[in-house]
Amino acid sequence: MSEFDLINQFFKSNYLKRDDVLLGIGDDCAILSPPPGKSLAVSTDTLISGVHFPESTKAEDIGYKSLAVNLSDLAAMGADPAWVSLAISMPEVNTIWLNGFMQGFNELLDKYNLTLVGGDTTQGALSITINITGFVSFEKALKRSNANVGDAIFVTNTIGDASVGLDVALNKQLISALSDSDADYFIDCLNRPQPQVFAGQLLSRFSVAAIDVSDGLFADLSHICRVSNVGAHLLLEKIPLSNALSTYYKKKPDWQTIITAGDDYQLCFTCSQEQVDEMTQLMSEQNILVTCIGKIVDKVGVSCLLGSELLAITQPGYNHF
Amino acid sequence: MSEFDLINQFFKSNYLKRDDVLLGIGDDCAILSPPPGKSLAVSTDTLISGVHFPESTKAEDIGYKSLAVNLSDLAAMGADPAWVSLAISMPEVNTIWLNGFMQGFNELLDKYNLTLVGGDTTQGALSITINITGFVSFEKALKRSNANVGDAIFVTNTIGDASVGLDVALNKQLISALSDSDADYFIDCLNRPQPQVFAGQLLSRFSVAAIDVSDGLFADLSHICRVSNVGAHLLLEKIPLSNALSTYYKKKPDWQTIITAGDDYQLCFTCSQEQVDEMTQLMSEQNILVTCIGKIVDKVGVSCLLGSELLAITQPGYNHF
Repeated sequence: MSEFDLINQFFKSNYLKRDDVLLGIGDDCAILSPPPGKSLAVSTDTLISGVHFPESTKAEDIGYKSLAVNLSDLAAMGADPAWVSLAISMPEVNTIWLNGFMQGFNELLDKYNLTLVGGDTTQGALSITINITGFVSFEKALKRSNANVGDAIFVTNTIGDASVGLDVALNKQLISALSDSDADYFIDCLNRPQPQVFAGQLLSRFSVAAIDVSDGLFADLSHICRVSNVGAHLLLEKIPLSNALSTYYKKKPDWQTIITAGDDYQLCFTCSQEQVDEMTQLMSEQNILVTCIGKIVDKVGVSCLLGSELLAITQPGYNHF
Repeated sequence: MSEFDLINQFFKSNYLKRDDVLLGIGDDCAILSPPPGKSLAVSTDTLISGVHFPESTKAEDIGYKSLAVNLSDLAAMGADPAWVSLAISMPEVNTIWLNGFMQGFNELLDKYNLTLVGGDTTQGALSITINITGFVSFEKALKRSNANVGDAIFVTNTIGDASVGLDVALNKQLISALSDSDADYFIDCLNRPQPQVFAGQLLSRFSVAAIDVSDGLFADLSHICRVSNVGAHLLLEKIPLSNALSTYYKKKPDWQTIITAGDDYQLCFTCSQEQVDEMTQLMSEQNILVTCIGKIVDKVGVSCLLGSELLAITQPGYNHF
């Protein structure tokens, strides 16, 4: 199949055209018109079969998740997503697989009013690289370097669900130990993460440092601390767990796993004590669950406290090599 | 090795910081400030080992070529390149290989005053995906749809050299049939293509349709014709060949290969008859060789003429699957 046919059959027909896309797929470059007075937030993430998702993952879920994890990077900057490029390597052109992939992918294009502006298709091991661009004001961006000593540390929603989802996906026998609805919930958390785009945009009204929890809460909070040159006390028992996860751990949460497994795609962010009330009220009005899980301190490093005990972290988070 | 260490050792230390890069590598997103009144030209290309370059290719050459082919897409739009994202998958972290790769890559970052603003590193089969952004005026962009019946068709420099370079790279015995300097020349054409960025920018003063010759002259000219809804007469004997290629073919050029092999990364463009003199004079003043190789006609399709004979094309160009 020629690249021209591929584009027309799978990529071009699906694409929503935003007004700021002057020239879309089909030329040497896309031509895009950035909004006056705004800066661009740009991120790139690659997903590889067997590394970033189990090889058994459905095409729809791969398409959805590939875009979701890239949207999550923009969310962590408080940006408004706009344009997407999709580079996909695959062993062969499988029409059913590609239709499924684009169905999941288009779900998020539609939800966030994004345009697929270009990309590349190549023959090779299954791998997806997405480049995403959004709009942001530099001053209001949720930079990792914004954390200050004394700030409270928050997360959105719940942490740790995707790690059980991965266990279930890789070991089907685990399913028998779970209720049907809990098994579906965990698998959904793994395959269908909800990028916290709206939460990030709301947070840009405050002076916060933010990161999306992709490599594990401990590792990602450590990134904020390193760049801001501060430390953190992470109060493990404050970390919000879903009902399904609480049931799964039978009141004895495996904190080591919860804070070092990745793929949550929630936001971890800091907030000055003066702004905490205003921020939590706004989030509550918008039905976004945020929970305080610790505070920023001046002693470098992230201390994980279980009551007054310090938990030693044996595997600090996802390592790329 | 952690992603943090990788970035610091290989990617961050090398990066030139442009004034329009407000936040570079190391946060969830880069933050970039587009120039007022300009549009953005954006392109993505993936290179896979064994598909887009022979597996034996040196790391320096892979780094150079990966960026060169992406720059070539901006050249074909007449854009001014600015920002680059680099997603690289590799089986392992090989320090020597990565240093070599970044040496070739940085050569072009420096030459074109580009900043590496972000990317991703993952473990997998060797594959490089680059996203590149440049600045362009939409009205002056060298869109493929700009060709009109009667226009002359031009190419920059010479065509067909990289195809011999690939033969030499894959079959070392061929080298013995060539002079040392010719063998080096062909290999250089394959591994070190010169993106025609400056030529593209000069051409934006005229009303031209352009494409970079990556899939083969015949296929790429066909793309212009399809989008512009016109046809072309391609006069094979007018196609400019290097001295090395003329020597190699001993006065009997293999036109079939010359126009269907890819990887030339020259520009193929159209020019209205009224503007031909002015355009060729400007190019001559700037020491850029451009050669007229045919004209745009209203009959759809690209006819390849050898004198009055029509050459039938048996393999129309590089097919991605």
